[in-house]
Amino acid sequence: MKRQTYAAAGVDLDAARRAKELIKRHAHATLRPEVMSGVGPFAGLYQLKGYREPILVSSVDGVGTKLKIAAALGRHDTIGIDLVNHCVNDILTSGAEPLFFLDYIAMGKLVPQQVEAIVKGMAEACRAVSCALIGGETAEMPGFYPQGDYDLVGFIIGVVEKGNIIDGRSIKAGDVIIGLASSGLHTNGYSLVRKLFGTEPSVLGQLYPELGRTLGQELLEPHRCYYQMLKPLLPKIKGMAHITGGGLVDNLPRTLPPGLTAKLDRGSWKIPPIFTLIQKRGNIDEKEMYRVFNMGIGMALISSPDDAGHLSASLAGARVIGAVERGGTERVVIT
Amino acid sequence: MKRQTYAAAGVDLDAARRAKELIKRHAHATLRPEVMSGVGPFAGLYQLKGYREPILVSSVDGVGTKLKIAAALGRHDTIGIDLVNHCVNDILTSGAEPLFFLDYIAMGKLVPQQVEAIVKGMAEACRAVSCALIGGETAEMPGFYPQGDYDLVGFIIGVVEKGNIIDGRSIKAGDVIIGLASSGLHTNGYSLVRKLFGTEPSVLGQLYPELGRTLGQELLEPHRCYYQMLKPLLPKIKGMAHITGGGLVDNLPRTLPPGLTAKLDRGSWKIPPIFTLIQKRGNIDEKEMYRVFNMGIGMALISSPDDAGHLSASLAGARVIGAVERGGTERVVIT
Repeated sequence: MKRQTYAAAGVDLDAARRAKELIKRHAHATLRPEVMSGVGPFAGLYQLKGYREPILVSSVDGVGTKLKIAAALGRHDTIGIDLVNHCVNDILTSGAEPLFFLDYIAMGKLVPQQVEAIVKGMAEACRAVSCALIGGETAEMPGFYPQGDYDLVGFIIGVVEKGNIIDGRSIKAGDVIIGLASSGLHTNGYSLVRKLFGTEPSVLGQLYPELGRTLGQELLEPHRCYYQMLKPLLPKIKGMAHITGGGLVDNLPRTLPPGLTAKLDRGSWKIPPIFTLIQKRGNIDEKEMYRVFNMGIGMALISSPDDAGHLSASLAGARVIGAVERGGTERVVIT
Repeated sequence: MKRQTYAAAGVDLDAARRAKELIKRHAHATLRPEVMSGVGPFAGLYQLKGYREPILVSSVDGVGTKLKIAAALGRHDTIGIDLVNHCVNDILTSGAEPLFFLDYIAMGKLVPQQVEAIVKGMAEACRAVSCALIGGETAEMPGFYPQGDYDLVGFIIGVVEKGNIIDGRSIKAGDVIIGLASSGLHTNGYSLVRKLFGTEPSVLGQLYPELGRTLGQELLEPHRCYYQMLKPLLPKIKGMAHITGGGLVDNLPRTLPPGLTAKLDRGSWKIPPIFTLIQKRGNIDEKEMYRVFNMGIGMALISSPDDAGHLSASLAGARVIGAVERGGTERVVIT
C-alpha cells in the first residue's frame, strides 16, 4: 500500500499550528490579570478571588444555522460576536458577571484565516465585557463537515455573589415586564428563514427598502449583548429572560414563579420589519412566529412597579411590554 | 405560499422537549450538593466553597471522528464516556479535581433516544469522578449534519489550590518519566484509521485474533480516565502530559521546562496490537505513528527518581518509559 500519512487523510497538523499562531494575539488581548498564562498547557487556569460566596454560573451555546448565512456571505468576523453575546446574556439572567470563555470550532478543512476571523469576532465581544478568552479547541474533521462549513460552540463561566443571584423568586402579581430591543433575529429561527429564502447570493444580496439594507446584512446582524447596560441596574431586577429559541412564550415562564402569568401587550412595541417580512414570505401563523422568533424583544426584565420607570428610562431601546398577573391556564398571554 | 412552520423546516421543538425529559434523570444522578438546581434556568449554578486560593481549571474538547465509528456501529452509549474522560484527563494535568461538566450535542435530525444514550454515557463517566453534569445544549441543525451524524463537545471546570498546581516547573535532568497504559486509540487518529479501513459494517465486524475482538469493538473502546488512580498521588507528580493529538512527541514538551529533553526507551513498553495493525495496513512511517497515535501510553507523569518507584508500583499499567535529560536539539527522543 502507498505510504499513508495523517495529512493525506485530511488532517493537517501544520494548518492547526498556523491557526494557533494567528489566533494567539486576538485571544491575548482579552486576558485579565486573573488568568494564569504560561501554566496549564492542557487547560486554562483562572484565579478566583475577592468573592465572599461565589456562585459559578455557566452556559454552553451554539449559534445554530446562522452559520450557513455567514458561510454563504463569506463573512466570518461577526459570528463569533453572536456566540459570545449569546453566552453572556444567558448567564446575565442569573445576575452573573462573565469571567472567561472557551470556544470550539470544528471544520472539515481547517482554513487558518477563517479560524482567525472567527476568533477575532469572539475576542472583540469578550473584550467588550472584560471576559477572558481563555482556551479553545479547533478540530479538523475531514468527511464530517462539508468544505466551507463549520460548527461553533461557546462555553462561558461567570460569577455572582450568592446574595445577588437573580432567580425570579420575588416576582409577584403587579410586577412590570420590560422588553429590551433585539438587534434582529439574534441566533434563532435560521432554519426556517433558510427554508423560506434559501442562501443564494442573489437572494441574500437583495436590497429591501423596509430593512434599509440587504437581506444578508440584516440576517447577519450580531446578537446584541445586554451586559454592560444592565450591570449597574441588576439590584433593581427581579427576574430576567433571554429570548432565544421558543421566543417570549417559552422563555418568559423560565423566570416566573408558578401560578403567575406574563400578560404582554403586543401593541406596546414595534415589531421590526424583518419579522413581518419573514411572516409574509412564509404565510406563518402569528402564534408560530412568537414561538420561533424574538419578535423584536431580545431580553425581558421583571421589576417592581416602583423600579420600572427608572429602569425603562435608563435603558436604550427599553419599554414596558406587559405585567405579571395571577395565573390563568396560560403562562404567557399576548393580546 | 403554503403555511410554513418551524417543524416543516426540520426543527422539531417537541422532539427537543422529549430529549430533555429523557436525559433529565441521567444528569440528575450526577449532581453534587454544590449544584444549585432549580435556579438559573438559562445557566448552571455551582457554589464554590472550602478552597483557600481556588484556581479554576477549564478545558473544552471533542472526540473527533471517533463519532463516525460510533455512528457506523449504532452504539451511542460509550462516546459520551470518551468525551468526559478526555476533558477530565486534560485538567488533571494541572492537578485539578473536576467540578462540573457541560455538553453540546448537534444533530441534523434530533432523535431523543440517541441523545439519551449519549448523555447516559456522559453521566456514567461524570459520576465515576464525582463531576456534576450541570448543563448542556442540544441543537437540531437541519441541512447541517447528515442524517444520523452528530457532533459532540464537552466543557469541564475543575479546581486546584494555587499551591498545588502541577506545572512541570520543578522538573530537572535526572527525573523519571512514567507512562500509563492507554485503553486503545482514545480519541485521536480516527481520520487516518477511517481512511485505511473505512467504516463498512463488514470491516468493523471482522474479528482480529491479535485484538481478541472485532475491529469495531477495539476502535470504540472508551478513552481511559486517570483521575481516580492519580488523585492520591498528585503531590508526588512534577509534571503530566495527556497524550492526545500529536502523540508523545508533541505532548510531552508541553510540560517540560525549556532546555530539557524527554528521552524515551521504546522497548520499555509493549505497543498494543491495534497500533501495529494500523501501521502495517497503511505502511505508515514509524515517526508518523508516534506523532498521530498515543502508541499505548495515554498519560505520562514526571517525578523525581526517589518517587518513581512508588508511583509506578502503585499504578496499574504503569512503567518507567524514560528519563529527562539536559536538552539537545530535539525535545523528545525515542530510541
